[in-house]
Amino acid sequence: MGKTTLKEFEAVFPLLVDELMGALESYKISPEAAAWYRRVLEHNTVGGKCNRGMSVVDTYSILTGKDKLDDTEYLRSAILGWCTELLQAYFLVADDIMDSSKTRRGSPCWYLHEGVGMIAINDAFMLEAAIYVLLKKHFRQESYYVDLLELFHETTFQTELGQLLDLITAPEDRVDLSKFSLEKHSFIVIFKTAYYSFYLPVALAMYMAGIATPENLKQAQDVLIPLGEYFQIQDDYLDCYGDPEHIGKIGTDIKDNKCGWLINQALAIATPEQREILDSNYGKKDDEAEARVKKVFVELDLEKRYQDYEEAVVGKIRKMIDNVDESSGLKKEVLTSFLNKIYKRSK
Amino acid sequence: MGKTTLKEFEAVFPLLVDELMGALESYKISPEAAAWYRRVLEHNTVGGKCNRGMSVVDTYSILTGKDKLDDTEYLRSAILGWCTELLQAYFLVADDIMDSSKTRRGSPCWYLHEGVGMIAINDAFMLEAAIYVLLKKHFRQESYYVDLLELFHETTFQTELGQLLDLITAPEDRVDLSKFSLEKHSFIVIFKTAYYSFYLPVALAMYMAGIATPENLKQAQDVLIPLGEYFQIQDDYLDCYGDPEHIGKIGTDIKDNKCGWLINQALAIATPEQREILDSNYGKKDDEAEARVKKVFVELDLEKRYQDYEEAVVGKIRKMIDNVDESSGLKKEVLTSFLNKIYKRSK
Repeated sequence: MGKTTLKEFEAVFPLLVDELMGALESYKISPEAAAWYRRVLEHNTVGGKCNRGMSVVDTYSILTGKDKLDDTEYLRSAILGWCTELLQAYFLVADDIMDSSKTRRGSPCWYLHEGVGMIAINDAFMLEAAIYVLLKKHFRQESYYVDLLELFHETTFQTELGQLLDLITAPEDRVDLSKFSLEKHSFIVIFKTAYYSFYLPVALAMYMAGIATPENLKQAQDVLIPLGEYFQIQDDYLDCYGDPEHIGKIGTDIKDNKCGWLINQALAIATPEQREILDSNYGKKDDEAEARVKKVFVELDLEKRYQDYEEAVVGKIRKMIDNVDESSGLKKEVLTSFLNKIYKRSK
Repeated sequence: MGKTTLKEFEAVFPLLVDELMGALESYKISPEAAAWYRRVLEHNTVGGKCNRGMSVVDTYSILTGKDKLDDTEYLRSAILGWCTELLQAYFLVADDIMDSSKTRRGSPCWYLHEGVGMIAINDAFMLEAAIYVLLKKHFRQESYYVDLLELFHETTFQTELGQLLDLITAPEDRVDLSKFSLEKHSFIVIFKTAYYSFYLPVALAMYMAGIATPENLKQAQDVLIPLGEYFQIQDDYLDCYGDPEHIGKIGTDIKDNKCGWLINQALAIATPEQREILDSNYGKKDDEAEARVKKVFVELDLEKRYQDYEEAVVGKIRKMIDNVDESSGLKKEVLTSFLNKIYKRSK
């Protein structure tokens, strides 16, 4: 099955920026403001791996059984893909402020750019607004238009709920591990990441392919949510145990007081002595404290625990995919293609 | 015509909070996160004058010619009113961060509350998200549901565009009066305030009353946008010339480098000497600089200029209202009731 490439997918974005600039022209906004919005769109939406956006196109290809999409179908599925990327851009611009992050995709975070600062908050809002301008322009005539709007609204709300729980459970500046739990971790991961990264792109492609019955959506969600949870747990694992050269960044979850999978596993099985070490060293911005936490992780053999988790969850997901009913147009291949991209990845 | 009271209107809000809490329960989010969201909703949405929200109810009453709405109609129009208030709450929580404001409605701004900080950004997002949860719950079955969604999307985008132009024209920390102009002031005021404060509530009531034809919407917009511009210009005027005891606050537009009506009028007619005084004193956080700016305003007799503007614009608006075609259900009274609330107000 022919997969879209980043180059093809990225080639669509300038058309969308032009359309958004056209919308501003109809409002007769000043050229400086239009130029600002163009920079916001280009800087924050392009430059990532675009896995989420491209997966809308790929899922649509699989669902329609077309090895090569015609230009219109490619464009329309790519627009839904870029709406997913715009949603992510909206979250990331804001998350970087809330987390006091310094860099994103190898350059300073948007709010740290010269002359931006807190204007980045309004910029984030306008990244979100772009989604609805584009959906209206391209999908207003479709019977599933209102479903697309509701899907974006609901996914946005879910992601914000995940972010809220994350922010109040693991504030950047106040460590309190008694607030952590595996249950909260699961909620944060599913709401903050799985819905918008896994379910949203597939559901969008399903609407466009005309197979988005409530049953099919439920079947997809039932697999994609645990798959998204597994993806984020793997991310948490790689932050500590991955090869920095290979991942392209040095993990900082321990220093940043992140409510990640490893610390929650550790808390669940630590002895009182180990717990004390975790309490007094987690979330500290110094290398020695971080090393002490990592030593406890080694004592608890969290690597092995992760590998056991991975095998178990992948087995469970494979079984769920096997049981998917394809008779109404959903295809197992959509789900296995996601699983194969994730299983045993090292970056 | 019986007008709704703040007490009646506010009595609806707790029901909406309960519904939103119900939505969170269905997601099984932790009680701490639900309690946080409740506080965000209550603190930031209730406590203002609710003029925008109540005007949805009052406009609906006028359009349907009902002196007293039955319970269902009251509730439904009030829900649309609260959605307008939620939209404003979303903007204000964020604007206060972007403007480094200190107080709002007599208490510290939300982001300055203990333990809140930049979490306020996500809180603002979740105030916006509440709008779509409520619209879906109460209006999904209506033929105009998609129109309501698009109206909120477009109004949101317009307000953000106004905020963007305001932020880049008059950054809080860098004074450059050469960026100001009456044209930009007009755009900022119309986009940042008039659409959501004047057009939105009336358009919502028009949809609910079943008279929102494109022609009627245009007739309403053609009057309400200049009316909203007038309202904000009056606000700018009162900031400098109003009685602080009466308005309930001491104006700080000059010190805050605001791109307001008075400074833009002054720039348009100042002599080179006066211009120099404005350039070197506007936007400075000290009382003497502010006094020098005010002295130029007096020399230029901006009070008279404002009074002339007010008489001219009100005359123009009255004429436009006179020409409104009521044959398809729009009523002049909707528009005059707005005008009468604003004309010659002193607070």
